[in-house]
Amino acid sequence: MNTATLSVATESVTDIAAMAQRARAAFAVVAQATSAQKDQALRAAAKALRAAVPEILAANARDLETAQAAGRPEAYLDRLRLTPARLESIAASLAEIAAQPDPVGLTLEAWSRPNGLQLEKVSVPIGVIGIIFEARPNVTADAGALCLKSGNAAILRCGGDSLASSLAILACLHAGLASAGLPTDVVQLVPTADRAAVGEMLRLTGGIDLIIPRGGRSLTERVAAESRVPVLKHLDGICHIHVDVAADPARALDVVLNAKLRRTGVCGALETLLVHRAVLNSIGAPVIAALIEKGCEVRGDAAAQALHPAVVPATESDWSTEYLAPILSVRVVDDLNAAIRHINHYGSHHTDSILTEDADAAQKFLAEVDSAIVMHNTSTQFADGGEFGFGAEIGISTDRLHARGPVGARHLTTFKYKVRSAGAVRA
Amino acid sequence: MNTATLSVATESVTDIAAMAQRARAAFAVVAQATSAQKDQALRAAAKALRAAVPEILAANARDLETAQAAGRPEAYLDRLRLTPARLESIAASLAEIAAQPDPVGLTLEAWSRPNGLQLEKVSVPIGVIGIIFEARPNVTADAGALCLKSGNAAILRCGGDSLASSLAILACLHAGLASAGLPTDVVQLVPTADRAAVGEMLRLTGGIDLIIPRGGRSLTERVAAESRVPVLKHLDGICHIHVDVAADPARALDVVLNAKLRRTGVCGALETLLVHRAVLNSIGAPVIAALIEKGCEVRGDAAAQALHPAVVPATESDWSTEYLAPILSVRVVDDLNAAIRHINHYGSHHTDSILTEDADAAQKFLAEVDSAIVMHNTSTQFADGGEFGFGAEIGISTDRLHARGPVGARHLTTFKYKVRSAGAVRA
Repeated sequence: MNTATLSVATESVTDIAAMAQRARAAFAVVAQATSAQKDQALRAAAKALRAAVPEILAANARDLETAQAAGRPEAYLDRLRLTPARLESIAASLAEIAAQPDPVGLTLEAWSRPNGLQLEKVSVPIGVIGIIFEARPNVTADAGALCLKSGNAAILRCGGDSLASSLAILACLHAGLASAGLPTDVVQLVPTADRAAVGEMLRLTGGIDLIIPRGGRSLTERVAAESRVPVLKHLDGICHIHVDVAADPARALDVVLNAKLRRTGVCGALETLLVHRAVLNSIGAPVIAALIEKGCEVRGDAAAQALHPAVVPATESDWSTEYLAPILSVRVVDDLNAAIRHINHYGSHHTDSILTEDADAAQKFLAEVDSAIVMHNTSTQFADGGEFGFGAEIGISTDRLHARGPVGARHLTTFKYKVRSAGAVRA
Repeated sequence: MNTATLSVATESVTDIAAMAQRARAAFAVVAQATSAQKDQALRAAAKALRAAVPEILAANARDLETAQAAGRPEAYLDRLRLTPARLESIAASLAEIAAQPDPVGLTLEAWSRPNGLQLEKVSVPIGVIGIIFEARPNVTADAGALCLKSGNAAILRCGGDSLASSLAILACLHAGLASAGLPTDVVQLVPTADRAAVGEMLRLTGGIDLIIPRGGRSLTERVAAESRVPVLKHLDGICHIHVDVAADPARALDVVLNAKLRRTGVCGALETLLVHRAVLNSIGAPVIAALIEKGCEVRGDAAAQALHPAVVPATESDWSTEYLAPILSVRVVDDLNAAIRHINHYGSHHTDSILTEDADAAQKFLAEVDSAIVMHNTSTQFADGGEFGFGAEIGISTDRLHARGPVGARHLTTFKYKVRSAGAVRA
């Protein structure tokens, strides 16, 4: 990076450009750190966090008091609130990330060429990653740890309401870094609630290599609209299940109920059920009845409404709505092609599943549905980095580039080519 | 893609949003096309192009006439000019791309989990790719063919000066697509010289998934500054060679002369030579004398100036200049760390090489120099997709994401996860 070209268009209280320069210097060190060094830092951070529970809870109490005084709703306060159990879960997550394999320095491909070149494609860290989040103070630990594990430097920007809590957690990460001989600038936190800082981060091309927003739709949309730096983001999870003509009735009942109702507020929750017309009465009717009995609101097209008196009419906007609530839209389709067309048109390319005992139908669905995660006879609630075996995740990308689906430490890398020869010159 | 969210901020003569909708429909087909179908389209396009040489040359003559009348410089006219030999090379390139392995549908990873999930990470096309270029009409064939091979749909936007030539080449691609039963909308060309079309492409998030500018620095910088769509781009190739204390003198002479002088106008040409102080006289002096003898201007720091009377003083700006000419800057460094620091600070993260017989020094250089291509005892002129074995390339990315280094058809893909289970529900 040619640091001479760094510039920031406006002034603010926080000097983001200076933070980015410190991050770049820290990146040069952490990118070359050994696996043992990084894992020691993570384990020491977990230990420091367990020892600092009283201080962190005290800081969190101050944050909660301010947020309460500002009239924040209870759901918001809950995201902000830390408890001994939540802190133990954060510490355990740091230790789990330490136990994962190092994603840096892997030989992804190796080959040689008639021109005398021996080539190797090797995974390397991305660089300086900016993470912008809102209330949840645990993101400080999760995002900082995933960046450290993957050899990147992180600049975190939390919402003003969680600043005291986040700084208290950051101190534990810094203790871990210092104990492993790594610079504490590997994980920095913008130390003010100054909103201009976000704008500066989004304009700092060359200084920050990637921005990851973690928060609600309005934050993510603002970041996507304003950023000059590449963004990796999560938007909607409008997940579908298609009940195929060859679906197994018992399996369909189990999977649909789980996909919709296990947790309705997660991005992998089912939002639209498609039912093949041929199994409308044999599978569609009992599934809908079971959903309604368990308290789920069902909004259906005309054919679905005919199945149960409690089904209310769906409108066009239902097909592109992520409810994140016990509400389901149901549409009847004439064949598999219609199901695939519906999903590719109305979906958010997140996670979609087909229920069928027909291998050809499953293969077609997995090939033609254009989503990050496509499933066969599987609940969409499995859309999760932990369930995939990635350890912790920084989110689930609905972008097509650079990473798609659950984003773990291994997805916070890029690559370089190492080329060796015995003095090869080009003809 | 939720097409309901497509919008374009301003109006222009060309309806880019409508082109993007046609491209999305063509993408749904070409993404599922077999390797045989895509390769047949490419071979048929090569055949059509060889048959249409007179028509293409006539169209090119009209383009040249207009460009000449507009007072374009000879270097520009040369980039625009087609000849029978150049057309044969374009046709041969189409056939070569057909002969490459299909980059789509590859199983990149496969694993299973204790939760009953069988997971597969599979390469898939990116979607709709916008390519913005200037005078060279061959980009129509190269970029269109690489997008087709990788299952993407392309929207090409050429400079107004090459419109007739590009349309004539496009007709051959369309003949190839049609003969293979693929929609001609797989490769579209913006049919006007209307400059507003570029701005529309850059704003069409959701409609276009990736923008690749192919042209000079001003085009690339405009695209990078304005685009709301992710961009994959090539900026400078400020390439370095570090002559280490353990370099072999004869090898150093061969490799440096080749890296600087084989072709000076390519992005892999050497621009700055770093010489370890201990071999300043033994290797630095004869290398510099040979360069000067072959007509290369050498700009050096004080130590380098002392080696030869023709060495002129280098200024600070020389270290970050891509000459693309027979000019070389030379700096003397005290050790390997100083060389690495210089390259990471002043370089463009493109291609950098170390000359040394010391394996440890080479390993350190390859690990710590933060460039897309790092080399040992190899000429930087090998920075090329063909030399790497990628077949044709759409350019060399100096971005860190989504692809780095030479970008071939295989780098115009992303991935999806296919998840199978026997009715797994999440606990």
